[in-house]
Amino acid sequence: MDSYFLKNYFCSSNKTFMHRTNTCGELTLADLGKEVILAGWVQKSRDLGGMTFIDVRDRYGITQLVFNEEENPTLCAKAREVSREYVIKVTGTVVERSNKNPKIATGDIELKVSNLEILNPAKLPPFLIEDETDGGDDLRLKYRYLDLRRAPLRNNLILRHKMAQEIRKYLDLQDFLEVETPVLIKSTPEGARDFVVPSRMNPGEFYALPQSPQTFKQLLMVSGFDRYFQIVKCFRDEDLRADRQPEFTQIDCEMSFIEQEDILNLFEGLTHHLFKTVKGLDMAPFPRMTYFDAMRLYGSDKPDTRFDMQFVELTDLAKGKGFPVFDSAELVVGINAKGCSHYTRKQLDELTDFIKRPQVGATGMVYCRFNTDGTLKSSVDKFYSEEDLKAWSASFNGEPGDLFLILSGKSEKVRKQLSELRLEVASRLGFRDKTKFSPLWVVDFPLLEWDEESDRFHAMHHPFTSPKPEDIAMLDTNPKEVRANAYDLVINGTEIGGGSIRIHDRTLQELMFKHLGFTPEEAQKQFGFLMDAFEYGAPPHGGIAFGFDRLVSIFSGLDSIRDVIAFPKNNSGRDVMIDSPSTIAEVQMKELCIKTTV
Amino acid sequence: MDSYFLKNYFCSSNKTFMHRTNTCGELTLADLGKEVILAGWVQKSRDLGGMTFIDVRDRYGITQLVFNEEENPTLCAKAREVSREYVIKVTGTVVERSNKNPKIATGDIELKVSNLEILNPAKLPPFLIEDETDGGDDLRLKYRYLDLRRAPLRNNLILRHKMAQEIRKYLDLQDFLEVETPVLIKSTPEGARDFVVPSRMNPGEFYALPQSPQTFKQLLMVSGFDRYFQIVKCFRDEDLRADRQPEFTQIDCEMSFIEQEDILNLFEGLTHHLFKTVKGLDMAPFPRMTYFDAMRLYGSDKPDTRFDMQFVELTDLAKGKGFPVFDSAELVVGINAKGCSHYTRKQLDELTDFIKRPQVGATGMVYCRFNTDGTLKSSVDKFYSEEDLKAWSASFNGEPGDLFLILSGKSEKVRKQLSELRLEVASRLGFRDKTKFSPLWVVDFPLLEWDEESDRFHAMHHPFTSPKPEDIAMLDTNPKEVRANAYDLVINGTEIGGGSIRIHDRTLQELMFKHLGFTPEEAQKQFGFLMDAFEYGAPPHGGIAFGFDRLVSIFSGLDSIRDVIAFPKNNSGRDVMIDSPSTIAEVQMKELCIKTTV
Repeated sequence: MDSYFLKNYFCSSNKTFMHRTNTCGELTLADLGKEVILAGWVQKSRDLGGMTFIDVRDRYGITQLVFNEEENPTLCAKAREVSREYVIKVTGTVVERSNKNPKIATGDIELKVSNLEILNPAKLPPFLIEDETDGGDDLRLKYRYLDLRRAPLRNNLILRHKMAQEIRKYLDLQDFLEVETPVLIKSTPEGARDFVVPSRMNPGEFYALPQSPQTFKQLLMVSGFDRYFQIVKCFRDEDLRADRQPEFTQIDCEMSFIEQEDILNLFEGLTHHLFKTVKGLDMAPFPRMTYFDAMRLYGSDKPDTRFDMQFVELTDLAKGKGFPVFDSAELVVGINAKGCSHYTRKQLDELTDFIKRPQVGATGMVYCRFNTDGTLKSSVDKFYSEEDLKAWSASFNGEPGDLFLILSGKSEKVRKQLSELRLEVASRLGFRDKTKFSPLWVVDFPLLEWDEESDRFHAMHHPFTSPKPEDIAMLDTNPKEVRANAYDLVINGTEIGGGSIRIHDRTLQELMFKHLGFTPEEAQKQFGFLMDAFEYGAPPHGGIAFGFDRLVSIFSGLDSIRDVIAFPKNNSGRDVMIDSPSTIAEVQMKELCIKTTV
Repeated sequence: MDSYFLKNYFCSSNKTFMHRTNTCGELTLADLGKEVILAGWVQKSRDLGGMTFIDVRDRYGITQLVFNEEENPTLCAKAREVSREYVIKVTGTVVERSNKNPKIATGDIELKVSNLEILNPAKLPPFLIEDETDGGDDLRLKYRYLDLRRAPLRNNLILRHKMAQEIRKYLDLQDFLEVETPVLIKSTPEGARDFVVPSRMNPGEFYALPQSPQTFKQLLMVSGFDRYFQIVKCFRDEDLRADRQPEFTQIDCEMSFIEQEDILNLFEGLTHHLFKTVKGLDMAPFPRMTYFDAMRLYGSDKPDTRFDMQFVELTDLAKGKGFPVFDSAELVVGINAKGCSHYTRKQLDELTDFIKRPQVGATGMVYCRFNTDGTLKSSVDKFYSEEDLKAWSASFNGEPGDLFLILSGKSEKVRKQLSELRLEVASRLGFRDKTKFSPLWVVDFPLLEWDEESDRFHAMHHPFTSPKPEDIAMLDTNPKEVRANAYDLVINGTEIGGGSIRIHDRTLQELMFKHLGFTPEEAQKQFGFLMDAFEYGAPPHGGIAFGFDRLVSIFSGLDSIRDVIAFPKNNSGRDVMIDSPSTIAEVQMKELCIKTTV
């Protein structure tokens, strides 16, 4: 057994051994002359003119240690033994620094060390423990415990902690009660795929992990809890993307005796509170937009409104001039790329290539330059006169220097395509600034959406969402047009959360399941407990859920949620650090009455 | 569709419809004359001399509504339509009550109703929604959403919320960061049975649900997080008892650069804070007792110290007087049941029957009365003289009126038996008052305990617990005697939590696994990621975990944790409300590459 471990162990039997007097982030000129004890990790060390300097790091900061060759050669020699990431403990006196470092809180001082203990040595880390590291994604996931030592990652998790605390403070003050709902629940066919858990005590049967506590929070409203919230893990067995994880965290809320208006106000208030307390930002009231307008003006139900560039429809102006592409199109629609008339052929080709990508799927793009000399020049000049182009320009509120980009085709499809183009152009123009925040509410979502694959309607939000009273009559006649009491909060083009006013009446819930293609028996088998509950005095209620990981990543200015999660899974759902999932023992499967079929 | 639902829906399109001006718990004489709107559930209604009275209930309280037959016959008739648990909304004026009810906050007033709306009718509940209900356990679990309407259950969950908030406040002030650890982890052979989750993306492999975040919180210490906590769901697939649930909640904490002393102080502080803020109690400092003393004086590592009644050893006094049972015993030990010398034959027989139960397993009990007339009378007088009994009595600090109860046999076994007898006698004497709280720390647990079944040593706490430095040498020579840096918090005979100073050195961790019967390969396969981490600069660290459900149930004065959990499972792990676990679709199993074998 190596000497360090014995030393540690014998030292630690001395009760006062471990105590630090300070952290590595707090000593200043106010502490000059004090004798202090610090403990932490060696960030780096260097020798300079008979002195050895060590930067010691902990969660709270970095302090410079100094060892003097002449004054204490033995100690200095020992200081030279230690290298990056060693865990050390030092005693010393706070002295003023000759070359101050204004970048760090402790930059005015250094510690003149009188005693150095190595608490634990360290092998050379597989990548640099610096703000900018040289480690690749896979390596950093395998050694996540080392990656988490880097300030950017640590700060994301500190921000996450702070946000969770502020969320609880705010909701507690609003009389919300945090109630834990079960993790071992029942598998349901609606929504995404469930993770399931075989039950040993009930052979052949399975629990499911919740995709959300939806039905339980509604039952809590039936129980009269009035205001519920929970910051809770949810689970979806879906194929993963940068912003998806098999387990994710939701800020889940439900209220009784309220209207959509109450919920929007209360949770806009929560978001304001977070921007204020966590980022020091006073946000303006959030604008609201109907789903219909969002699709019409941005081709998306989660528009990025950090910049304008709204859609302009040219169908009437563009048709009937002999250009077959437009003449045959259901919709001709474009955007004004302000000040881009100077775009080169090459730049325009790049945009054309972008929209032709399979994930966008457009066939071609028409452009029209409003040159700074006032002339208009388009890629379809042979079909459209100067007058025609002037009319287009007017619709775009064009000014000299602008560039109009126009797509055409089937309305729904072309809007989605133009939405992609709009974001691409905005990125190229630097409009998508991560330090800028543009929230909005999208309201009046459709209740149902047609699913080609299963050839039936799906609930756009979920089956418990109530239709707008005035639209209920259309459920039988024109289901696609029925609007829901549903709403989403969108920030910078990301859906942060959504919710709805729920159905609280058995009859309407049964009607809803019927339109989702459930037989009465299926509906009763899956959700009978909820519909039964509605018959024992269910209050009108509604709620909302925010994706906590996404909210934190937006606040951190990150694209992926992975770096706001301490121990994320990779894209094939593996935790490469602990090497999970893994095979289990035969006896375990036997006890659970299951077999694998691979 | 029934008329109520249509009414609700058309009403709810009016934005102001839902708003209450007040809750049912806040109106007092200060509000006299105000016109208010309340919404809630009908608790009860009665007719009395041309008046109809309805008690309307919400989470916040109960308010009495009054309807006057003469003044408004139509409204009064409508009021008579509603019955228990209907959801109603009323407008009315606050008036003073003739017969005040001092028991409730709103007892001085009642609401003279001008308008009544039925928001949702209710079928007759299957049991009484009162503090004392007539519903059986199974029925109440099936209709948990109705049981949760009862004040006692609701108050438990409100207390739970308050405690969680206070815990987070306290730990946040102490620089702890709440970090979420994964729920989908890796199955390990140590400890209790894991719940497992088949992975669709990794066919034939399984995740496991965590029994605790132990290894992850230690990795967070290696990452330099310094102080971690989490209020987190944990999972154990064990056969259930009143105080066990397959999913339970833990207050999980870990700290770096600390000693056992620091942890005891900090978490004694947390417990003091909870007693103060939640129950308004100023608790004295918690006593500490070694595991050895706890076993010697109480025969239990979680002694109920609300009362004294410590063990008294009589072995030397009792042997060699010709009483074969004692002569052949390894240990003769008893308790003094103060003031019980009057116990009848029948009462003594009941105690004898109690200790003879299989779960106690003693063969017989000797008693000795210290009569109020000063005489001593035992069940073994033919072997022991007055002098002998006087000597016994002296050891018991006996006084006239006392009763000595004595067991004998193998030390370990007889102590456990006497521990049961001690608790039984205390219950009969009313010493186990649920409104009294007696916490203590039990320290210096053994590191290892021998497991007959698997014929090897098990870690008494867990394999990551460090031995006391001065005992390490005994690991090879006398493993049973090695003490751990481990501690438990016990309140009223219940283990609330426990923890330890961890191993942070690969060599010692390997040594530990060796003593637990792991081959180096097995240890590396299961816990390699942790031992590898120890080589990259692991700080000395330790922690503790409290059983949150148990802590809340102790604070609520309950024996079972079931009533501090919103939606518990029954003893066969079923949620009878949602009927889970249940079978899943063939296609689901196919996707997961598993088959059931039942």
